[in-house]
Amino acid sequence: MMNGSQSESVSAEAFLAMGRSVLASQPFSALIGAELHALSPGSVDLQLPLTAQLKQQDGFAHGGIVSYMADNALTFAGGTALRVPVVTSEFKINYVRPALGERLVARAKAVHTGSSQAVCTCEVFMVNGGVEKLRALAQGTIATLPDASRKPV
Amino acid sequence: MMNGSQSESVSAEAFLAMGRSVLASQPFSALIGAELHALSPGSVDLQLPLTAQLKQQDGFAHGGIVSYMADNALTFAGGTALRVPVVTSEFKINYVRPALGERLVARAKAVHTGSSQAVCTCEVFMVNGGVEKLRALAQGTIATLPDASRKPV
Amino acid sequence: MMNGSQSESVSAEAFLAMGRSVLASQPFSALIGAELHALSPGSVDLQLPLTAQLKQQDGFAHGGIVSYMADNALTFAGGTALRVPVVTSEFKINYVRPALGERLVARAKAVHTGSSQAVCTCEVFMVNGGVEKLRALAQGTIATLPDASRKPV
Amino acid sequence: MMNGSQSESVSAEAFLAMGRSVLASQPFSALIGAELHALSPGSVDLQLPLTAQLKQQDGFAHGGIVSYMADNALTFAGGTALRVPVVTSEFKINYVRPALGERLVARAKAVHTGSSQAVCTCEVFMVNGGVEKLRALAQGTIATLPDASRKPV
Repeated sequence: MMNGSQSESVSAEAFLAMGRSVLASQPFSALIGAELHALSPGSVDLQLPLTAQLKQQDGFAHGGIVSYMADNALTFAGGTALRVPVVTSEFKINYVRPALGERLVARAKAVHTGSSQAVCTCEVFMVNGGVEKLRALAQGTIATLPDASRKPV
Repeated sequence: MMNGSQSESVSAEAFLAMGRSVLASQPFSALIGAELHALSPGSVDLQLPLTAQLKQQDGFAHGGIVSYMADNALTFAGGTALRVPVVTSEFKINYVRPALGERLVARAKAVHTGSSQAVCTCEVFMVNGGVEKLRALAQGTIATLPDASRKPV
Repeated sequence: MMNGSQSESVSAEAFLAMGRSVLASQPFSALIGAELHALSPGSVDLQLPLTAQLKQQDGFAHGGIVSYMADNALTFAGGTALRVPVVTSEFKINYVRPALGERLVARAKAVHTGSSQAVCTCEVFMVNGGVEKLRALAQGTIATLPDASRKPV
Repeated sequence: MMNGSQSESVSAEAFLAMGRSVLASQPFSALIGAELHALSPGSVDLQLPLTAQLKQQDGFAHGGIVSYMADNALTFAGGTALRVPVVTSEFKINYVRPALGERLVARAKAVHTGSSQAVCTCEVFMVNGGVEKLRALAQGTIATLPDASRKPV
């Protein structure tokens, strides 16, 4: 997902800008309008304004949108922790409650970073009138690419 | 997700048509162009033609698209097995390999159906030139709504 | 797992004593020597001294022992959060690193408690010479028993 | 878990005998009495007679015993598929129903084997009077050891 060749001396602003350019290069993320609000090594704040197209008829966000947010936030957290090209190996998500609102916020972090993978956790919140409610909880593995010929996901 | 009030005497064609109307009522599924190819109680074949918008720059499908397919197929399998309004409680997905292709196919089935939940499994394949390759494997829980006031996801 | 009929007025000591009697009533937990070090509604500290029988030949704790610790800690956290008889519905565990040591410590908490289930997380640490290292990370669902006739696990 | 240096020419009997010696070398597996009934590359049948010590007061097998069976069967399936020393990276388990019986049977297989990991699935059955009932469903990742200095779990 992320080339990761940035050096330690990159400023916080440059690091976030780098992440935003990665996100912008994902056509699906651009299609639905995901926004990177914060990014540092092993930590990310990914947000998504909920337009009508992203909701179900009853006004709730589609579960697939919530899982996209978890998947992508976990990958950013793991990719910036490992600092090499990565793939999302697997993740698990619990939808703790349905919730109405205007924005999804996914905050993920790398809990353990080893030589070949990072184990990351993510909380997804629904924001309604400025108030955040936990919408889902996820946990997953981000792995380094075994070799340069294998493409990132 | 699904109202489930269908009787046992519904024809296979009517059952599939009912499922397609559920899928069409999901704005996000309509946005990306998901298609229901087969549906019977506890079993589903959900497909997605991969347009440029759904791919990464390198031509691979975004992981979030693959997880949407698993999430939605698991929910259709569990909802038609339980035959009452349901929510997706949780799922886990392993991305077994990246793959290029023109279509994703998610086949899910209910492996165990109890009084309050169904445990379902799902295989997601990438179709390239008519050949299917396993892209991801998922397993999850679809739960009946505890009460009528709680809205489906 | 837990009858949960305790009232809010139970003292912290009585609550822990109640939990210890639940643990003592599990023959497998008694066999391997699990110990309850802290228990409050939605929160638990479960520990296990590592005898030779619980280790592999190379001195590491068997993965099955680590998953038992996560399973049981998640169930105590969810059961004391829900305060009714519960079953463990599902969980997921990531083994973040192998580790040598003399004791496993599993700390679990209920992150979200609804009417019919609690979503809980758990960290399992290996203690070596008094120093804790993260060994595994787990997340799972503890569900209320659908009816009184169904037995807890 | 498994050294994996066996050649393709090993007989089925020798392969099973090799697996039984691996199982016998796990003190915890010996303590509870696990038995290897079948083993071939990427496929395993692991069984456990349920003595009183492995049951709860109500006669059900402890969830931690069921998760041990899934964990170990997944690892045997992945280890024999990859044929190099492995660690269990992560798994997820759904307990589909409680069940009384005299024996647990865990059957696992490698669904996808790559260069650095195998994704495996496992069904755990309770046997009661010779009749098998599905008790749990699991899915997980078995990874090759990144380097020889890292010890298997």
